[in-house]
Amino acid sequence: MSRPRVVIVGAGFAGINAAKALGKAPVDITLIDRRNFHLFQPLLYQVATAALNPSDIAYPIRSIFRRQRNVTDIVLGEVTAIDVDRRIVTLDDGSAIPYGFLIVATGATHSYFGRDEWEAVAPGLKTVEDALLIRRRVLEAFEMAERHPETATEWLTFVIVGAGPTGVELAGAMTEIAVHALAKEFRHIDPATARVVLVEGGPAVLPVYPARLSESARRQLEGMGVEVRTDSLASEIDTTGVTLSDGTRIDSHSVLWAAGVEGSALGATLGAEMDRAGRVLVDEHLTLPGHPEVFVLGDLAHVEGPEGPVPGVAPAAMQAGRHAGEQIIGALEGREPVPFIYRDKGSLATIGRAKGVADLPIARFSGFPAWLAWLTIHIFYLIGFRNRVFVFFSWAWSYVTFRRGSRLITNIEPGER
Amino acid sequence: MSRPRVVIVGAGFAGINAAKALGKAPVDITLIDRRNFHLFQPLLYQVATAALNPSDIAYPIRSIFRRQRNVTDIVLGEVTAIDVDRRIVTLDDGSAIPYGFLIVATGATHSYFGRDEWEAVAPGLKTVEDALLIRRRVLEAFEMAERHPETATEWLTFVIVGAGPTGVELAGAMTEIAVHALAKEFRHIDPATARVVLVEGGPAVLPVYPARLSESARRQLEGMGVEVRTDSLASEIDTTGVTLSDGTRIDSHSVLWAAGVEGSALGATLGAEMDRAGRVLVDEHLTLPGHPEVFVLGDLAHVEGPEGPVPGVAPAAMQAGRHAGEQIIGALEGREPVPFIYRDKGSLATIGRAKGVADLPIARFSGFPAWLAWLTIHIFYLIGFRNRVFVFFSWAWSYVTFRRGSRLITNIEPGER
Repeated sequence: MSRPRVVIVGAGFAGINAAKALGKAPVDITLIDRRNFHLFQPLLYQVATAALNPSDIAYPIRSIFRRQRNVTDIVLGEVTAIDVDRRIVTLDDGSAIPYGFLIVATGATHSYFGRDEWEAVAPGLKTVEDALLIRRRVLEAFEMAERHPETATEWLTFVIVGAGPTGVELAGAMTEIAVHALAKEFRHIDPATARVVLVEGGPAVLPVYPARLSESARRQLEGMGVEVRTDSLASEIDTTGVTLSDGTRIDSHSVLWAAGVEGSALGATLGAEMDRAGRVLVDEHLTLPGHPEVFVLGDLAHVEGPEGPVPGVAPAAMQAGRHAGEQIIGALEGREPVPFIYRDKGSLATIGRAKGVADLPIARFSGFPAWLAWLTIHIFYLIGFRNRVFVFFSWAWSYVTFRRGSRLITNIEPGER
Repeated sequence: MSRPRVVIVGAGFAGINAAKALGKAPVDITLIDRRNFHLFQPLLYQVATAALNPSDIAYPIRSIFRRQRNVTDIVLGEVTAIDVDRRIVTLDDGSAIPYGFLIVATGATHSYFGRDEWEAVAPGLKTVEDALLIRRRVLEAFEMAERHPETATEWLTFVIVGAGPTGVELAGAMTEIAVHALAKEFRHIDPATARVVLVEGGPAVLPVYPARLSESARRQLEGMGVEVRTDSLASEIDTTGVTLSDGTRIDSHSVLWAAGVEGSALGATLGAEMDRAGRVLVDEHLTLPGHPEVFVLGDLAHVEGPEGPVPGVAPAAMQAGRHAGEQIIGALEGREPVPFIYRDKGSLATIGRAKGVADLPIARFSGFPAWLAWLTIHIFYLIGFRNRVFVFFSWAWSYVTFRRGSRLITNIEPGER
């Protein structure tokens, strides 16, 4: 007997949770991803800042579904086309997979607001390779300063564009690398003299947080020595630095991009309406208008909830994934679809060692308790016992020693060095 | 007052130990390496086989010498020329460093015996990037077999050329990946059907070991299912497989090179006599004939000891490094140079889970005890408390679960996927 096939594109938080919700369903699941691992993106900045290894925050997709037998196919490949009328997904090797239900959850990538040439000089942080590139650029900047002290100022100036959670976390971590992790290791420069500038177009850091917490985050950042510049946009970025909207020029060889994201390209191929950020507009059932069998989830989807659009955060993606899975089971059992309701469990951001902000339903607080809550939640949601132990030990070790365990400059292209 | 400058090129086992031996000496040390970390090469194959992370077996050079103040310069760069008459070392950025004493310890790289075109199809294992490339090739081979079952046989055939310690360790680890680590994770292929072929030109595996241990190693490998082919050379290697000297053709997309090494290119620039493996012939003081101030150490040096040439192994390099450091101190104190005597502490090789061979002065044994001795020694010699804990935990976890913790396919070139 043939069971309905559910094709899931993307093994992020939404895709993984959708597949798990279908664990006991009478369906055959094909899970497609370009990578062989699920990545815990909220901790990616810790790889970029030499605190964690890629494999500490990634887990092989096949291992996750080792025992879930209705996941009949896990495909390492890229979807090149989706035909929602003929219900067929096409892969990069030309093979076509017909589906009964489709879940598209390929997430978002960074957006340079039309200035794609900036990507080469101001890398963003979405993939493991991005993180290793940023780690390499940052560590090499200190090496260049040591080797050419006359140019130390530019080399020791780090500019982070965008003060959302990633930008704030990067800025905090950069300061700690300079002040603590590299202390006493250089002979001709003092890493602690490094200048970390956080540039934000809006009036506040962590814009989505309540004003009180935003201000607290800003105070905590400035307390660490981060130079916070709100209400200023990057108008020009090149290999020698950044020009801000007010004309200020900042000489720097290390500009990091944490400003904009846009839905991944696959969304556009669905032929549905999109928002300005390249996200697919879905109805309250998280499905394409007119296609109740096609779900678009996570950062790729624009969902209008009672309190405005659902935010592009991991908890929302997990909830959407579970909802989609349940809806498919409901449809198979002939039940009416239930609208998706996003339950805001609150937001947590870390700023650095024993620093952070927490905006939880029960309370709003900052500093050490927020940081502790952040650590606990992130360890809890990591997949895999081994990863939890390694991340916990890495953090404990860093906390005690003030050092960072993954300070390798790797991914040197052949011949480059 | 100006103190004599000791320039050390290469932060491997020899270079690191030379610098440490000079810890209290009245000299200024410049330590030059192309990488920012010291790599524990004996465990590199474990990165290639997804058991360990690069940063578990690497340690930042600056951290090692954080408190040794007479290391006045640590340079991330490449030496392009050495003028032993004018006593000047030139770097890739053109800067020239005059020296009083010079230690050249840049190690070895793999040699394809004049068939350099094989490097692209049969990667060797010397750098972190090599290890990540091999890891990626191996893991992708299983993915390709799953996606295209009709070609599974070629994709699931792995050929390792060269049955020295690295080749034997790779062959054993490859078998364990196929049989244990990936078990139950694929739906269309059985990884355990993978064929691992170990090709060796000589009559025995681990040729440097006593016959009894070589035979034991071979039995242990064959017991794991490795196909051992001694007395056969690779006469042709391309993307589709290997042709052996006896005409046998093995179809495989995963050929790994563990056969030959040769001294790194810098050796030739010293203008000294070299052996056929591109190693610099040094006298019993480990110095260049006619240049008592120039030491060549480790895998780059050819040293004739009372019992024949000193082997290119980590313990020999460490001893040579310490000896060079002591000789420099002696020279400063006007003492006569003392010849280098290599103390053979014995050899250990691991073959796989609870398998290995040990050739120690006190005893020769194999199997579990040899494996245990191997684990203990390698953890002991790792630099850094954190690395020791992580490696120990990784091994313990793998031993209990039969799994491997770093199964990420990374270093995807942009646009490639």
